[in-house]
Amino acid sequence: MPGLLERYKDFLPITDKTPALSLHEGSTPLIHAPALSKLLDIELFLKYEGLNPTGSFKDRGMVMAVAKAVEDGADTVICASTGNTSAAAAAYAARSGLRCIVLIPDGNIALGKLAQAVAYGAQIVAINGNFDAALSLVQQISREHPIALVNSVNPYRLQGQKTAAFEIVDELGAAPDILALPVGNAGNISAYWMGFREYRTRGMTDTLPRMWGFQAAGAAPLARGLERVDNPETLATAIRIGAPASAHLAKAAVSESGGLFDMATDDEIMDAYFQIAREGVFCEPASATPVAGLLKLHAAGKLKPGSRVVAVLTGNGLKDPNNAMRGMAAPVAVGADMQSVLATIL
Amino acid sequence: MPGLLERYKDFLPITDKTPALSLHEGSTPLIHAPALSKLLDIELFLKYEGLNPTGSFKDRGMVMAVAKAVEDGADTVICASTGNTSAAAAAYAARSGLRCIVLIPDGNIALGKLAQAVAYGAQIVAINGNFDAALSLVQQISREHPIALVNSVNPYRLQGQKTAAFEIVDELGAAPDILALPVGNAGNISAYWMGFREYRTRGMTDTLPRMWGFQAAGAAPLARGLERVDNPETLATAIRIGAPASAHLAKAAVSESGGLFDMATDDEIMDAYFQIAREGVFCEPASATPVAGLLKLHAAGKLKPGSRVVAVLTGNGLKDPNNAMRGMAAPVAVGADMQSVLATIL
Repeated sequence: MPGLLERYKDFLPITDKTPALSLHEGSTPLIHAPALSKLLDIELFLKYEGLNPTGSFKDRGMVMAVAKAVEDGADTVICASTGNTSAAAAAYAARSGLRCIVLIPDGNIALGKLAQAVAYGAQIVAINGNFDAALSLVQQISREHPIALVNSVNPYRLQGQKTAAFEIVDELGAAPDILALPVGNAGNISAYWMGFREYRTRGMTDTLPRMWGFQAAGAAPLARGLERVDNPETLATAIRIGAPASAHLAKAAVSESGGLFDMATDDEIMDAYFQIAREGVFCEPASATPVAGLLKLHAAGKLKPGSRVVAVLTGNGLKDPNNAMRGMAAPVAVGADMQSVLATIL
Repeated sequence: MPGLLERYKDFLPITDKTPALSLHEGSTPLIHAPALSKLLDIELFLKYEGLNPTGSFKDRGMVMAVAKAVEDGADTVICASTGNTSAAAAAYAARSGLRCIVLIPDGNIALGKLAQAVAYGAQIVAINGNFDAALSLVQQISREHPIALVNSVNPYRLQGQKTAAFEIVDELGAAPDILALPVGNAGNISAYWMGFREYRTRGMTDTLPRMWGFQAAGAAPLARGLERVDNPETLATAIRIGAPASAHLAKAAVSESGGLFDMATDDEIMDAYFQIAREGVFCEPASATPVAGLLKLHAAGKLKPGSRVVAVLTGNGLKDPNNAMRGMAAPVAVGADMQSVLATIL
């Protein structure tokens, strides 16, 4: 399957001058989840975005944003990020021969989270300040220098991300009844909604899904109806955001589609994480949030039996594997003989 | 794209009773590497096996092995493994509703390496013994109990793995001139060779590639012409094997194809690892070994200009990200103002 810019060129802001950038992003599997479908009395599919080239859905938006940066003559891209965004930016910058600069807040940053960006050749710059200060700085720098900002305020990001909605319709033959996804900065739910609407306008689907956005309880401004949450806390680090940048777009998507916002606790998220893994699919904790939300709504009788639901798993479990081992003690070694082993396993 | 058992059913030992097991393995991208192609004066493609469902090429063999275990009535699969094999076995067992037991040697096992298998629900059993003792025990248990052994001695593993050769021919329209890949236990080089030969027999390609197998210098019995290497050592943990189980098959593949075995040092492997990442592709250190070997052979004038070469990248870089950070100091924070940041980056 070709990359997104080629596969969906008629739906993207591509000109004769846009480079044919690709790391074979997109075209990720839509995996039926038999055990969870039975448990929830619905037809559940998992859109496994972890199989994108850098391991998260961010590649969809980044291939578009970096291609446009090249088209516009930039020789450098910049972002403030400590996670998936920096990996995607660094990969596509490397592929394009551009420099990539990643600003990170000082203190408490696990360097391991930046291993991918470092491998792809990004320059990491720590500042004496918090994440908001880093974001403010990269915006200022991109305004005054020929350096392309590729944080989510870059509008090409959502253009690329909307292609995931196209793929779901292409594969199912129609939009699902419900699209459930994790909400952090709220850009992805907005991009999916844009994608479904555009596909309807072009006659590719007659119906639209209800958009169900799920947040972690410790970082749930939209689900709680708040403007912002100070000091957001959740082990689902990819959605640990207190003031979603695209809140207005996400609210519109939920309102226009007759959808909802809800939230799940960290315990509920980890329970869903293991249930998804038992289907054979390993995702980031944040990715388990929509399934946690579906389990909760089902228990409350709010999930219509027989609904066709797609839950978006935004990132690969290998991004953050340690959660799988939480609370697990090292196994106690048994004798290296058959009786000892059989006594343990049978 | 469907999973391998469906895509290549006419080439696999599939019967009416074989379950349609799939996590959408295979159909991994073949990525052209422009910078390395230029440097090596060849046409180089990277077969990026890290985008398989559990992050390595092991999924190809495991989907076949576990499907046959189900067909044969097993309710449990077992393997001795501390790495990619355990992840793949656990995922396909979970998907099939089978139990998965993973035997590991006691001592010095980083539990993090087992996070994936644990998430998928495998039972981890540590024994008071080394890896050879663990392997011997799982073989004995599978002979005497209805428990399917899914280590590489299971012949279905190579059957599934050979499909990667099919995909390369399907995409290029012919076999490449050279197939370069890392060699640890030596099963994969044997499986590729089987795949290319079968495809020629069926008329899908007129030519066969030369098989070039590369080992890490600290674990290179085949490249050194030795029976075995005691205490193998390399940071490329996925190929840290002193006595390859499929050595005889690998020797036949190299001999019949007019190929070669060679080796690369850990420094050469890490250099190649970063050069691959600069193409936008993040792989395990072991996966960089064939590219390290190609760089070495090019420097020695042994790489024919214009050759079409496929290097197999067996695993995802996210499996072992810490190598990207080796020797890297935490960045020193600069002032959170534009002048300080610009002074650092311009």
